[in-house]
Amino acid sequence: MSASASEIIFLGHCPDQVGLDARITGFFAGELFNILDLSQHSERGRFFIRIEGSEEGERQSIQTWTEKFFPIARELNMEYSFHDPLERPRVVMFCSKTLSCPLEIISRWLSGDLRIDLRAVISNHMDIDPVVRKLDIPFHHVSTRERTIDFEPQQLRILDRYNPDLVVLARYMKILSGSFLEEARIPILNIHHSFLPSFIGNDPYEQAYRRGVKLIGATAHFVTRELDEGPIIHQDVVRIGHQFSVADMKQVGADIEKQVLASALRKFIERKIIQWQGRTVVFH
Amino acid sequence: MSASASEIIFLGHCPDQVGLDARITGFFAGELFNILDLSQHSERGRFFIRIEGSEEGERQSIQTWTEKFFPIARELNMEYSFHDPLERPRVVMFCSKTLSCPLEIISRWLSGDLRIDLRAVISNHMDIDPVVRKLDIPFHHVSTRERTIDFEPQQLRILDRYNPDLVVLARYMKILSGSFLEEARIPILNIHHSFLPSFIGNDPYEQAYRRGVKLIGATAHFVTRELDEGPIIHQDVVRIGHQFSVADMKQVGADIEKQVLASALRKFIERKIIQWQGRTVVFH
Amino acid sequence: MSASASEIIFLGHCPDQVGLDARITGFFAGELFNILDLSQHSERGRFFIRIEGSEEGERQSIQTWTEKFFPIARELNMEYSFHDPLERPRVVMFCSKTLSCPLEIISRWLSGDLRIDLRAVISNHMDIDPVVRKLDIPFHHVSTRERTIDFEPQQLRILDRYNPDLVVLARYMKILSGSFLEEARIPILNIHHSFLPSFIGNDPYEQAYRRGVKLIGATAHFVTRELDEGPIIHQDVVRIGHQFSVADMKQVGADIEKQVLASALRKFIERKIIQWQGRTVVFH
Amino acid sequence: MSASASEIIFLGHCPDQVGLDARITGFFAGELFNILDLSQHSERGRFFIRIEGSEEGERQSIQTWTEKFFPIARELNMEYSFHDPLERPRVVMFCSKTLSCPLEIISRWLSGDLRIDLRAVISNHMDIDPVVRKLDIPFHHVSTRERTIDFEPQQLRILDRYNPDLVVLARYMKILSGSFLEEARIPILNIHHSFLPSFIGNDPYEQAYRRGVKLIGATAHFVTRELDEGPIIHQDVVRIGHQFSVADMKQVGADIEKQVLASALRKFIERKIIQWQGRTVVFH
Repeated sequence: MSASASEIIFLGHCPDQVGLDARITGFFAGELFNILDLSQHSERGRFFIRIEGSEEGERQSIQTWTEKFFPIARELNMEYSFHDPLERPRVVMFCSKTLSCPLEIISRWLSGDLRIDLRAVISNHMDIDPVVRKLDIPFHHVSTRERTIDFEPQQLRILDRYNPDLVVLARYMKILSGSFLEEARIPILNIHHSFLPSFIGNDPYEQAYRRGVKLIGATAHFVTRELDEGPIIHQDVVRIGHQFSVADMKQVGADIEKQVLASALRKFIERKIIQWQGRTVVFH
Repeated sequence: MSASASEIIFLGHCPDQVGLDARITGFFAGELFNILDLSQHSERGRFFIRIEGSEEGERQSIQTWTEKFFPIARELNMEYSFHDPLERPRVVMFCSKTLSCPLEIISRWLSGDLRIDLRAVISNHMDIDPVVRKLDIPFHHVSTRERTIDFEPQQLRILDRYNPDLVVLARYMKILSGSFLEEARIPILNIHHSFLPSFIGNDPYEQAYRRGVKLIGATAHFVTRELDEGPIIHQDVVRIGHQFSVADMKQVGADIEKQVLASALRKFIERKIIQWQGRTVVFH
Repeated sequence: MSASASEIIFLGHCPDQVGLDARITGFFAGELFNILDLSQHSERGRFFIRIEGSEEGERQSIQTWTEKFFPIARELNMEYSFHDPLERPRVVMFCSKTLSCPLEIISRWLSGDLRIDLRAVISNHMDIDPVVRKLDIPFHHVSTRERTIDFEPQQLRILDRYNPDLVVLARYMKILSGSFLEEARIPILNIHHSFLPSFIGNDPYEQAYRRGVKLIGATAHFVTRELDEGPIIHQDVVRIGHQFSVADMKQVGADIEKQVLASALRKFIERKIIQWQGRTVVFH
Repeated sequence: MSASASEIIFLGHCPDQVGLDARITGFFAGELFNILDLSQHSERGRFFIRIEGSEEGERQSIQTWTEKFFPIARELNMEYSFHDPLERPRVVMFCSKTLSCPLEIISRWLSGDLRIDLRAVISNHMDIDPVVRKLDIPFHHVSTRERTIDFEPQQLRILDRYNPDLVVLARYMKILSGSFLEEARIPILNIHHSFLPSFIGNDPYEQAYRRGVKLIGATAHFVTRELDEGPIIHQDVVRIGHQFSVADMKQVGADIEKQVLASALRKFIERKIIQWQGRTVVFH
């Protein structure tokens, strides 16, 4: 949760060494910045830190903070970013025929629960069109029947127009090519309808039924070139019993997958996620 | 979950005695009805039963089933009902300023996840108006600023027009009078934003913060004349920590309350709830 | 949960057909047996039923009930059993070096939480010896360093002496051979330290760490000839974060695995499990 | 979880001001201490911090660390402590007739799961005597039939002998007097068999049954003079249904309460708890 009085969020990671916390918090103290919440974690020689707090001195822009910190970051070989918690990330959502996931995002955006700026919806099907049109959300239908090298450039041109901070794949049923990922150059959040790494691939519910599992789950992860292998952000499961048919499992699966996607998206909005080498650090 | 092949659902309860299952299932066998799922429970001298299955003989209407069973029910002093799982309950939803709960119901109705027939929305505020209008859901604004005996008759007249099977209070912030309940004569489902019986009354999150609880919850219950005391249908909780401000607790509380309300509504749709003397039997 | 007034539990399964509930409950009505709880489920042409209740007529032994029901079972081609809920299943526990799982079973047996008759502990290590000796639980050390065909007959001879209804593998780290399973001829309950089918095989925590999963789990299942593929009885998971080292994951994993094992064992004690073709029906 | 390489844990809290993190982490940097995990949280003008890490310079004793930090603490008006993660807290456990809770602690202590030094068990009943005797745990029976001012001095004398860091009330069914708390002067951890603040007082399960709740819970808290009002450390719940009798609820309640107690105790062992004004900060 974000401390409500927070005005700046800082995220950074770099090679670990003695004295990093002192160096970084010393910088903030020098700027009369009051740290309300700090989490720092080190593993395998890598140092991860998240700071949020309020400016007791004069208000400074994200730009100014970023510039002022630059010399320290260069010295520490640190990747870092500053964020304004009031600024909503710009999001473009991809979907297909399944409505429950994209509608969850839309409904949480409408209610103010997810503080995003939902710029547009892109789909390879028309199913969501009537709803998004009524709600005045820009909608783009891009058919994926043709060859990938034909429709992906179209999608990229649309993305370009909206300049999003994040793409959310809300049960978009097409695999993005490596060249798409390269050109898009922004994080892409996906929901997988199983508890990865169980039941990768198609029809996880049929697999789960035959295996007689007692829990089914969902996994939100960043998309990488390796299908179903991107860094996991959030997972959850729901209990099922013998009396659940495959259709029943799909229904409760749809439920848990949309909640997992929304939770992961909230962590992104709160700037609590750092990706590093196939894993994520997700601060509390 | 409903067995997908089910064509009829039967619910009943009566004073317990030896031989009830045989009597009831004997009736169904005589009608060539194949029972796919049967749950029966007895407590404190009361017998509760739910049956679902398929008609191996000729298809008979709910009306016919109801009539054919009547002599047995009279003999056993049983309250009972037959339902067609494909028929969607007619629902009128009440709400106020909070949008997350009513939007959840609407979004699950749109996605087909909640198989209801959402007839209308009644609110004492205008906040939800733009959304429901765009989605072509009939909307009625009934101000509750005046005296209860002035606005409740208005609400009842609107209900009358839509003939609902159920009223859902989706964070409607006004207490229904006893005479409203009497005249409405249909079940009324409410969501309370705490884990009842903790934190009854106003501002449960402020109470929860001061108390330093580590879980916050929500409770779906039927409305009775006793405020916050109606039979509980479903409850759930979410884990919080010291870092959660009251505002943070409200946000995660909004999350859990809408999920609890949707789950309770699904149990109603699946005809799995029997009310009896301040408690509910909720079949799996 | 077992209705506390229950005196007899009945479990059965057979090919599905119309009228089975009437036939079976008719039998119980004829015996003046009051059914307090009945669960019936059908899937893919198979009928599963569990009944518990009290004898309103004269008390009859398990033997008598079994004999009286036999003609019906033969006619319906049904596998069935009667149980006295007060009779504790005889259990022999196998373990190895890990103590948390066997100690959980022992401690729940001591406190009366698990109503078993713990006959003996067999281990291929001496680690648990001091504890079980102090508690006067018969202990047998059977080294598994030699060839399987040497030590398994030893284990079988010990089993023979105690005549158990169930073997519990409480983190016993040796694979039982097919011929052992055949000769033992009683159910064998195992705990697997992962959320199957994820992370089968060795060192699931190392795999889970590298994959960055956010939940780790455990699976209780019956042992069959297919390693890690037996019918699943119970599963549960626990949330972890990036800050969990492999050692930390082992610790919380030990926690969840012993709870899952105890829960599955309780379901067995309550006679709520039916195995059928690679899946289990686990009644509530 | 404790980073496995950690050699020192530091806990502190003081009035909030700009620059505290820099001041404190600067001290550690000066000592060539590598911070592996740092959590800092501020609320309502109070600053809370927990640090763990490894000594890159020379190893220093807890005593030395405590003395070196003293000037800073005095300046900041900070309460603080240093801990060696390898040192096991000395614990005396109180219990009564209920065995599941104390046996859980004992079994987790035996298996190495709870890294405590279990010095002795004090009970006002003899039920646990056979078990603890067999396990060579010092046992003291202090009858509580007489007046509080008679038996509490006895208990205090026993405590004195073992010099514990913590008293654990594992379902000890007697209220400690204010003067006991004053004289004991160490933290006292209690488990309450309900989800506080629901169902305070006697027989929470009977209350829960009548109310028809769908979850029952347990609460671990520090003992203060206000009965059932001490700072909450951990809570959890378990799902129940209509079919649970009061006896069934007691059984699953016993399950969840012992898990909650063990989890709270683990947080204490990991030095993750700070008490402050009726609430706790429990670091992840």
